[in-house]
Amino acid sequence: MPVVKLVLEYDGTAYVGWQVQPNGPSIQAEVERALATLHKAPRRVTAAGRTDAGVHARGQVVSFPEERPLPVKAYVMGMNALLPPDVAVRAASLAPDGFDARRSARGKRYRYVIENLPTRAPLTRLQAWQHFHPLELANVREAAAHLVGRHDFAAFQASDCACEHAVREVRRLDVVGEGGGRIEVVIEATAFVKHMVRNIVGTLVEVGRGRRAPGSMLDLLARGDRTEAGPTAPPQGLFLEEVFY
Amino acid sequence: MPVVKLVLEYDGTAYVGWQVQPNGPSIQAEVERALATLHKAPRRVTAAGRTDAGVHARGQVVSFPEERPLPVKAYVMGMNALLPPDVAVRAASLAPDGFDARRSARGKRYRYVIENLPTRAPLTRLQAWQHFHPLELANVREAAAHLVGRHDFAAFQASDCACEHAVREVRRLDVVGEGGGRIEVVIEATAFVKHMVRNIVGTLVEVGRGRRAPGSMLDLLARGDRTEAGPTAPPQGLFLEEVFY
Repeated sequence: MPVVKLVLEYDGTAYVGWQVQPNGPSIQAEVERALATLHKAPRRVTAAGRTDAGVHARGQVVSFPEERPLPVKAYVMGMNALLPPDVAVRAASLAPDGFDARRSARGKRYRYVIENLPTRAPLTRLQAWQHFHPLELANVREAAAHLVGRHDFAAFQASDCACEHAVREVRRLDVVGEGGGRIEVVIEATAFVKHMVRNIVGTLVEVGRGRRAPGSMLDLLARGDRTEAGPTAPPQGLFLEEVFY
Repeated sequence: MPVVKLVLEYDGTAYVGWQVQPNGPSIQAEVERALATLHKAPRRVTAAGRTDAGVHARGQVVSFPEERPLPVKAYVMGMNALLPPDVAVRAASLAPDGFDARRSARGKRYRYVIENLPTRAPLTRLQAWQHFHPLELANVREAAAHLVGRHDFAAFQASDCACEHAVREVRRLDVVGEGGGRIEVVIEATAFVKHMVRNIVGTLVEVGRGRRAPGSMLDLLARGDRTEAGPTAPPQGLFLEEVFY
């Protein structure tokens, strides 16, 4: 059966996250509602990443098998007319038989935005972590470099993660910025454990504040103890940027 | 009497504009309410620019005479604790006697952000004009160059403007971007007539779409007829960036 693949952008501020949940509006519910209207029948979609409440996406990918797909343009135009202003379809295409947005993914790239400023700044409050203590970027970069490669990321895994193991391969971990303003942490990996990016960023920020040595990342990886790593960075700085297939 | 000068950042999305108005919440009312709490007495402030509904600011300046000013740090910390999340004080200082945020201003810089994309993009919807027709930036730049200098901007003035005349000096008008994405129009002038930036941007976008020749800006300036210029660009793309004294 043909499979339809959609690339979504959304502002996660108003949602409990990607996944349908009893406690509030989800992006999944909005997408499935719009698809049901287009197809005049219920549809269930699979997403590449289950983003948390308040997390954003520029390149979330969803898929669903469809016996008689509409012309791909109809998914872009039709969905964008039906979806709320904070969710949109940026592209649509037909994928090979058996394609599944989650299982077929070979990697993902996330971006985490930190605004390192002395006072709060209203214009970026919903799309960045505003951090008021100055961060030493040279140390953050040194710490980040230790995480690149294939490692057991148990120390950066949410305690309620259902994963069998936490071995993942980080292909890229760049810290972009010059200090004193916008800092972007770009992480690309084959796969991620739950809260991995936010836990890494929370720990890197402790390094940037001088509370933790850059080399301590090696101990964290070796011991795999979540309680020894830093706090989870807040959701509003996180963007799912791209999924690779 | 000493004068207190505050630099404000705000997200104008939820407001009817800077100025107190009967039909909804204004940024002025929020600022004056917070100042009244700090000083335990009513305060009235003057702003450098009266931004419209939905227009943002990174560097709005307000001032008020104050017999016994608080320490300047107290204005930053105190106001930011009292103001709503979409308004903040970025800096506070004491200004020379007689300083007035509006009358003392020697110039202002605005930024207008256009997202030139094929489909709507939720993450920038409240801080950019999303324009779906491709724009030819070389033509936009050629048109913009005609507006730099001292001219009568009557053609770009809101019809209900109370100004005596529309002669203003544009010191800088840059079109930043490479086409097919984010385009920023940066305008610096000694002063502006009402809706000047949005009317200029609306007209430049018509040039970019090929509906108007770059050289037609000279006729617009010469004839001074508002009905011959382009439409007013929407408010959410506009940012008051800096006020010069």
